[in-house]
Amino acid sequence: SDETLTQLRTRIDQVDADLVRLLAQRFEVTDLVGLHKAANGLPPADHTREAELMARIRPSAADAGIDPAFCEQLFRLIVDEVVRRHLLIAERA
Amino acid sequence: SDETLTQLRTRIDQVDADLVRLLAQRFEVTDLVGLHKAANGLPPADHTREAELMARIRPSAADAGIDPAFCEQLFRLIVDEVVRRHLLIAERA
Repeated sequence: SDETLTQLRTRIDQVDADLVRLLAQRFEVTDLVGLHKAANGLPPADHTREAELMARIRPSAADAGIDPAFCEQLFRLIVDEVVRRHLLIAERA
Repeated sequence: SDETLTQLRTRIDQVDADLVRLLAQRFEVTDLVGLHKAANGLPPADHTREAELMARIRPSAADAGIDPAFCEQLFRLIVDEVVRRHLLIAERA
């Protein structure tokens, strides 16, 4: 019924609010990494670390019933945004 | 120091595990929406609902210090994956 759909969508909206909060927490921590890198003259991107992240994400996605390729694409988007923020932090430092 | 970086990265890895868990919860609920749609002959995508989602996500991202365009791109990826799963559910129904 319409009520079922409304209840499910209310739950989705709650999860989305949690996702935004969690993303904000993640960027808070990665901004600290960016400050640390800028202060120590380290490059904004770390391809070894990124490869490790993807190697961990794919099986944990599969375990959770999420398509690994989709999940890798999502985290690629996040990591690209992290690097963009690191560049901004380095410019301001 | 290296210890600072290690601690920050441990925290990032914890947040990533939470993100995957939360995404899995979201797909569990959207799969129920997909089953409901398939059972009632409703189309897999709902562009009005998607537009409402994006209209809500952009300001809540900005409030959380996240680039709204990035956040919209991320949720666009999630919504596309939801529609793909809805199509699979409808095929199996």
